[in-house]
Amino acid sequence: MGETIRFGVSLNSDLLEKFDALCREKSYQTRSEAIRDLIRGVLIQKDWESSDKETAGTLTLVYDHHVSDLAQKLTAIQHDAHDLVMSALHVHLDHHNCLEVLVLKGPGDAIKKLSDKLISTKGVKHGKLTLATTGHDLK
Amino acid sequence: MGETIRFGVSLNSDLLEKFDALCREKSYQTRSEAIRDLIRGVLIQKDWESSDKETAGTLTLVYDHHVSDLAQKLTAIQHDAHDLVMSALHVHLDHHNCLEVLVLKGPGDAIKKLSDKLISTKGVKHGKLTLATTGHDLK
Amino acid sequence: MGETIRFGVSLNSDLLEKFDALCREKSYQTRSEAIRDLIRGVLIQKDWESSDKETAGTLTLVYDHHVSDLAQKLTAIQHDAHDLVMSALHVHLDHHNCLEVLVLKGPGDAIKKLSDKLISTKGVKHGKLTLATTGHDLK
Amino acid sequence: MGETIRFGVSLNSDLLEKFDALCREKSYQTRSEAIRDLIRGVLIQKDWESSDKETAGTLTLVYDHHVSDLAQKLTAIQHDAHDLVMSALHVHLDHHNCLEVLVLKGPGDAIKKLSDKLISTKGVKHGKLTLATTGHDLK
Repeated sequence: MGETIRFGVSLNSDLLEKFDALCREKSYQTRSEAIRDLIRGVLIQKDWESSDKETAGTLTLVYDHHVSDLAQKLTAIQHDAHDLVMSALHVHLDHHNCLEVLVLKGPGDAIKKLSDKLISTKGVKHGKLTLATTGHDLK
Repeated sequence: MGETIRFGVSLNSDLLEKFDALCREKSYQTRSEAIRDLIRGVLIQKDWESSDKETAGTLTLVYDHHVSDLAQKLTAIQHDAHDLVMSALHVHLDHHNCLEVLVLKGPGDAIKKLSDKLISTKGVKHGKLTLATTGHDLK
Repeated sequence: MGETIRFGVSLNSDLLEKFDALCREKSYQTRSEAIRDLIRGVLIQKDWESSDKETAGTLTLVYDHHVSDLAQKLTAIQHDAHDLVMSALHVHLDHHNCLEVLVLKGPGDAIKKLSDKLISTKGVKHGKLTLATTGHDLK
Repeated sequence: MGETIRFGVSLNSDLLEKFDALCREKSYQTRSEAIRDLIRGVLIQKDWESSDKETAGTLTLVYDHHVSDLAQKLTAIQHDAHDLVMSALHVHLDHHNCLEVLVLKGPGDAIKKLSDKLISTKGVKHGKLTLATTGHDLK
């Protein structure tokens, strides 16, 4: 199970103040408790993303369709991994911005790799992978 | 700007070991740096969710369609807030599980409220709101 | 190949006038030619719908979400045939009307049967199945 | 109201035989009745497509994503008319073929014009516009 270890964290007082307000709002008893939850959260996400177990997720992309060849590039990347892409929904947010949501299914690591490739394509402003299953428990 | 403050965090050694591995992988120089990023992340998310500024996001829901009246309830909630819901995409993951992604547009707080209502509906196994714009900088 | 047969059709003169205008617009040389195309069209559609060959199509449904239990019924029917339904996209047209498009893949006759069931559900105002592959030639 | 007019139609006997079978199946009393329904159908469709009244529809496209620049071209055309396109759903049918369904809302003639442009783009194998409201009655 492991022993309890204590270490120091340094933070700007403005950031800490906002964090304390959030902890109160979410009824955390201590900062440690809140930070443990944050750490568990990223570890669960990482666990998913490095597993070869079948999982499902959605990838949200926001991009400017005026960027040259971007639609073609994103389509090409998706097709090279078309076994993972179940469907894609495209919505026009405003004159410049498109929002595209991909529903992905397959091994976690393959989903992560495909997502990273799409998010890092030049012209993509924002990208976020959400895994859609519950990870196993972390202490 | 505020001064730098140092405080202690206690953690189980197993959890800390995994966190340290993640920090190395992501090239963080110190644990403080990694924890500051986590805190900034939740504060940006909270900021979005409590703002009345126009934003966009996607809500991913996983649910078991066999749960009585669930589809009807989720549809009813969406229609009560139909100004916020641009489109919804429905995919059958397997015999039991449906994945539904909603594209939402409107004030951040209204999007958050609608999402909480849908996620907390009985029978929804997993729900995650992803905001699709970049928040303003936090130190 | 078969011989050419001639038979008489009776029509209201107003309807005929509009039909003649359409024939001119679409550059048909004779009414027979236009009518042959219409007949080929429905036969191709019927051929698809009665075949057990793998095909794909989209089903467009318009319905009033206020009709009691309608969303639940439509979801239940789709799940009973979930092997055929690849994705469904839901858009709110206005306060009353929903538009739902289903992407279907499977044997033509199974797609047709599912579509008929959904279209005939009480509360569905409009439904139209579009098959998305080219049928074999009809003379 | 107009008088009843009778005119002759010539058809290949094989095609006529199949048409007669379809008429029996759909319980039409006479060939004239069935042909009148076909004619009314295309006139309603034409009526929609030439009206400037607000309507909604879905456009189903099947295309080969390997055709050079096709995704980029289709995206560009959609964005030039982005007021009409509510959402687009993209599904991979097989290694070569994509199915894309667009939900369109706006004046009938604008929807028709956009659809024709997309369908006639080189590389699009199949395209079909389905209008999603009921046309006014035709005799």
